[in-house]
Amino acid sequence: MASLEQISRRGLLRLVALALVATTSGALSGCASAPAAAGAGSDPLPSWNDTAAKQSIVAFVARVTREGSADFVPVAERIAVFDNDGTLWAEQPMYFQALFILDQVKARAPQHPEWQDQEPFASVLKGDVRAALAGGETALATLLFGTQAGLTTEQFERAVRDWIATARHPTTGKPYTAMTYQPMLELLAYLRANGFKTFIVSGGGLEFMRPWTEQVYGIPPEQVVGSTGKLKFELRDGTPVLVKLPEIGFINDKEGKPVGIETHIGRRPLMAFGNSDGDLQMLQWTMAGSGPRFALYAHHTDSAREWAYDRESHVGRLDQGLTEANAKGWTVVSMKDDWKKIFAD
Amino acid sequence: MASLEQISRRGLLRLVALALVATTSGALSGCASAPAAAGAGSDPLPSWNDTAAKQSIVAFVARVTREGSADFVPVAERIAVFDNDGTLWAEQPMYFQALFILDQVKARAPQHPEWQDQEPFASVLKGDVRAALAGGETALATLLFGTQAGLTTEQFERAVRDWIATARHPTTGKPYTAMTYQPMLELLAYLRANGFKTFIVSGGGLEFMRPWTEQVYGIPPEQVVGSTGKLKFELRDGTPVLVKLPEIGFINDKEGKPVGIETHIGRRPLMAFGNSDGDLQMLQWTMAGSGPRFALYAHHTDSAREWAYDRESHVGRLDQGLTEANAKGWTVVSMKDDWKKIFAD
Repeated sequence: MASLEQISRRGLLRLVALALVATTSGALSGCASAPAAAGAGSDPLPSWNDTAAKQSIVAFVARVTREGSADFVPVAERIAVFDNDGTLWAEQPMYFQALFILDQVKARAPQHPEWQDQEPFASVLKGDVRAALAGGETALATLLFGTQAGLTTEQFERAVRDWIATARHPTTGKPYTAMTYQPMLELLAYLRANGFKTFIVSGGGLEFMRPWTEQVYGIPPEQVVGSTGKLKFELRDGTPVLVKLPEIGFINDKEGKPVGIETHIGRRPLMAFGNSDGDLQMLQWTMAGSGPRFALYAHHTDSAREWAYDRESHVGRLDQGLTEANAKGWTVVSMKDDWKKIFAD
Repeated sequence: MASLEQISRRGLLRLVALALVATTSGALSGCASAPAAAGAGSDPLPSWNDTAAKQSIVAFVARVTREGSADFVPVAERIAVFDNDGTLWAEQPMYFQALFILDQVKARAPQHPEWQDQEPFASVLKGDVRAALAGGETALATLLFGTQAGLTTEQFERAVRDWIATARHPTTGKPYTAMTYQPMLELLAYLRANGFKTFIVSGGGLEFMRPWTEQVYGIPPEQVVGSTGKLKFELRDGTPVLVKLPEIGFINDKEGKPVGIETHIGRRPLMAFGNSDGDLQMLQWTMAGSGPRFALYAHHTDSAREWAYDRESHVGRLDQGLTEANAKGWTVVSMKDDWKKIFAD
């Protein structure tokens, strides 16, 4: 499989590899259920404490939406971009998409008896993820493409829908969509109520997100930007289908995020929200625009209600980004201090 | 330049090559100014004659927007996709983007004294397009990348804006945006008034279209899907820029159109509009969806007011598509018979 070797050489899958082998510097110490949001009457952000982070958001939105003000921005240019993993939902102990891939190996094993003796599938089926990934990026690409290549986009969409409806997180036992962040759901709705168009700009797979982002985040498929595999148009018995190929198309991470934004959206965002170094270039690109711009990092500081990790974490590392945010005065949310409630549940 | 050779080998630029060397089977015999649209009161499509084509559009829109009807389609799923060249604006005697590239050689020649003696630039500067393109696809890629590679996306956007504001069509003498089709502008507005989201899905360059589609068509940048070159994120003196690389990213034509739709929009269109075989797969993909779907070909039949061409044309060939449209009962617009007025002017 030349394409697997190519990918291995290019190191494009390092991102997902890191997810699968990750051990994090923080620990989940209980996920105690968060206090309910205070009934704050007309407050559109009731799960946010009234701290500097919330105030900076509200002040910025007021500034760009006040008609007649020098900083007024027309509705068409109110673009807000959100990273997904670690920004809109959790990402520990590894990216949820990696858990999906492992589950897919198990789900598809009955149609692949050869996997029982074939690595890295055999180790996954025995529950030994560490052994499965001893082969590094090639092993990972084999899992990714082994479970997806050859599926039509409709078959893959069904697999994602089934998984998101039934799978449970390994440590919290919650459905994954219950591990979205309530304060961010409120923020999405608040921005849309103020004329913003909200986009996801994620390193995760485009087709892994779209089946559920509209229902969960209110973000329609055409406003999701992500990493892609190549697709092939075919006529099967006269019916057109799109088939997933075992080749990476585009990795929408780090330097790729501004490229993804330019290619997909074609406007520079007014506001950008992330949580890791993988979002740094997106925030830089946003802040380099003319006129008022807003950048925010969500900092995972709550080991009791969620996880605490930053500069040393393999998943969602926030190191350079934290340094730059502090130096430039971008908003940094401390999830422990700034959020009344963490998970949407 | 390895990348040029790669492209040459892959034949990806055949599309644009055809545009540049094209001689068409139809001839522009005058472009007499079209009769003004009849003031039709509340008719949202006044530049359409009241023929079967118009009736099929209005009937379909009524069918999918009538609440409570079995064929009702929610607003979120009302996606309409439009080819650009030959569907929303003219494409003769060659794709307008090809004329832009030739003009760019002239505009950038002062900064490139070496072009005076270097093919294919030298021949373009002498006005001999045929000689310039004797080198085939490699010559063409050299022109394309020679005028664009190394520019930032902002520099390129300015070049397109300047050109679209000042350039004139070689035979009509009109600004290119005056050669958009009035009936299609009305159709775009009519569909949007009925809750549709309108997208361009074109083989043309994404960044060539976006600077003017919002003003001319009412289609914002994030709803334009097109062919792309690769981009590179760089920090220049600390300021992030996106630089155009001399490499093709994605060709959004023929089999590429359903892939572009899936990647960019992530929903199957409800209605699709094209004019050439390059749109056939987009129309097939649209019509293969469940429930009511609508496909339309604009057939260039008006040699007096526009051009007449189809099965034999190098630009915008409509051969297989016309056969399939007739066999399957898709709507085929005869521009001569179905349109009262052609150009928006």
